[in-house]
Amino acid sequence: MRDVAIIGVGMTKFGKLSDKDLMDLLCESSLKAIHDSNTAESDFDAIYVACMCAETLNHMTGIASALADRINLIPAAADHIKNGPASGGSAIKNAFYAIASGACDMVLVAGAEKMTHISTPGFVTSAVATITHHTAERIHGVSLPSFAGLLTRAYMEKYNVLKEWITSIAVKNHRNGLNNPYAHFQKEVTLEKALASPIIADPLQLYDICPISDGGAAMVMCPAEVAKKYCDTPVLVTGVGQATDTHIIYEREDITVLKALQICSQQAYTMAKKNPEDIDVAELHDAFAILEAIESEDIGFFKKGEGAKAAYEGLTEIGGKIPINPSGGLKARGHPLGATGIAQVIELVWQLRNEAGKRQVENAKTGITCNFGGFGNNIVSILVERM
Amino acid sequence: MRDVAIIGVGMTKFGKLSDKDLMDLLCESSLKAIHDSNTAESDFDAIYVACMCAETLNHMTGIASALADRINLIPAAADHIKNGPASGGSAIKNAFYAIASGACDMVLVAGAEKMTHISTPGFVTSAVATITHHTAERIHGVSLPSFAGLLTRAYMEKYNVLKEWITSIAVKNHRNGLNNPYAHFQKEVTLEKALASPIIADPLQLYDICPISDGGAAMVMCPAEVAKKYCDTPVLVTGVGQATDTHIIYEREDITVLKALQICSQQAYTMAKKNPEDIDVAELHDAFAILEAIESEDIGFFKKGEGAKAAYEGLTEIGGKIPINPSGGLKARGHPLGATGIAQVIELVWQLRNEAGKRQVENAKTGITCNFGGFGNNIVSILVERM
Repeated sequence: MRDVAIIGVGMTKFGKLSDKDLMDLLCESSLKAIHDSNTAESDFDAIYVACMCAETLNHMTGIASALADRINLIPAAADHIKNGPASGGSAIKNAFYAIASGACDMVLVAGAEKMTHISTPGFVTSAVATITHHTAERIHGVSLPSFAGLLTRAYMEKYNVLKEWITSIAVKNHRNGLNNPYAHFQKEVTLEKALASPIIADPLQLYDICPISDGGAAMVMCPAEVAKKYCDTPVLVTGVGQATDTHIIYEREDITVLKALQICSQQAYTMAKKNPEDIDVAELHDAFAILEAIESEDIGFFKKGEGAKAAYEGLTEIGGKIPINPSGGLKARGHPLGATGIAQVIELVWQLRNEAGKRQVENAKTGITCNFGGFGNNIVSILVERM
Repeated sequence: MRDVAIIGVGMTKFGKLSDKDLMDLLCESSLKAIHDSNTAESDFDAIYVACMCAETLNHMTGIASALADRINLIPAAADHIKNGPASGGSAIKNAFYAIASGACDMVLVAGAEKMTHISTPGFVTSAVATITHHTAERIHGVSLPSFAGLLTRAYMEKYNVLKEWITSIAVKNHRNGLNNPYAHFQKEVTLEKALASPIIADPLQLYDICPISDGGAAMVMCPAEVAKKYCDTPVLVTGVGQATDTHIIYEREDITVLKALQICSQQAYTMAKKNPEDIDVAELHDAFAILEAIESEDIGFFKKGEGAKAAYEGLTEIGGKIPINPSGGLKARGHPLGATGIAQVIELVWQLRNEAGKRQVENAKTGITCNFGGFGNNIVSILVERM
């Protein structure tokens, strides 16, 4: 298996981008990544595009082929990878395989979602809820926020966790987002304000939940052996993992355990010959504050039941024991579904290149992600290291 | 790069399957392929699912994760691959990379489309037309059949081709389909009848166009070095190619040339160290009869302009110079979009295993496919050989 490197990254700002459509977001982020990688159009032999809901929200199919045309990468192969909100992670994984196998020498990975143009109330939430189990869950009206509410309650009861510990995660991520120019939100939110915000899915409140965002994120990957020809500071992808869990959440032995994350992060650690203690910075999938708490446990940073408290005590701050979501996470950076898994790795690339500005984690050499698809039934972890 | 083999295949019957939904089709074909491969559930580390329009036609996302759950392959990684009507080919390509890289040791590839339950006139054609260029083509009301009509006319005029030569392709494929128990249509259609059928997109007539079908197709792939542990007659995937062309058809230098096919088939031939003359049997993408004619040229079997005449003269019959679509092709086997690229390779596997019954191509050792995405702007070729 050939070693694989990331030699260029690019993002649009995330947020409500009224003047841009899905293809604009894919093109802008891709061209930035290509520019950052010092590659030429003719270098590329494959493109992987991540997007969750292009049919429903944008009335488009064939978006990977369309991107190849728009940014002049024809005749590069082009595929669209779907894995719900973990589509970005899956696209990176498949690009990794394409290069590791020796079949491809230069691959563009781009992810985007255009969501904020939909004005029908509940339409976007319903589109995302198509990932739940139809007969066991969806027809009963369940949505992802309602699952997150139930999970929050179960976690609080099982581990004697205070709601403010969980909400402190959102407060931290808002604070980190202040220093991320690409973030959807750049505003501080106090714990008091967050705890006084409206309940959305009891006990989850407004500030515990990520926004609906537009945005694009892209990266260029190639064999490690040629990476320094293009870039002074390549970042190696040394671990890749992905695992599934039951579709029906009720069927899990313990809903406060993300078994798919335990498995896929272990795959990534094993491939990279690393342990959780070796990780300097992590980007986790805080679509809901409770997820960051639980993920920080199942990815190996804290014992079960201790993730929320650890965050409340500052252990996951920049400068803490294990900084989580220095980018602001899905909470503050925003969550354009198909872009998220790629944006997570881009933040790690910036951290490992020492280019993260005021949100820099000092001397970060190793990072890992959790990109969460479905409601935890398909999770991807990518582990990256300085070259 | 590790060599890759196909050790099991399975299909549902294609057609109007009123009592089955999308997941039923994926499950049935997958379980048949797994049974055929003598593998156990716990052997699998990845699943690739191909489907073009699950959001629009089936209101589902996360279908790959759902399949992992339904057929008990958890915690295998699961991704949904989209490349329009070439989604099946793309899924096989990515499974090939996963194994070739050394990352995966047993992969299920499954493709399906559930289409015939939609009763709104034009809805399915419109859903498929989301793959055309929105501003340059789609808003003007163009659909894939209308493109095929224009292409047929351009080809007839450029190369002095008679309509009956083109329609003879559909007649041949209907005849082949008679002997395929999985085919949507098992009925003979005479040239006279086909030429008297209603015009759909001038000059294309009813029998020149594939039906709208339901169906599923699946295969199991693993490293060639272990294939004989599972199966006496593995089939090797020795060539894989994929290429893009302009999204806007008007921008092509010559619309009667499928440049993406020339490129991707050459990639497959080069990888396999084969030439068109080495191929014993081919499965091409005859969504419209004109496509089989042009594809048979651009994949290297006939000179430009001679494909339709060659078919009329019997060169592409079973027993002819190069048998094309012994399965009945998209015309008679049917065209459940996401399943098609996989069904093409399954037919080749059956031919190479000498299991094709009355439609057997004698002593077939090498086969190739053309799986056509968009309107020729993203094409995949898979080349297979007896082990």
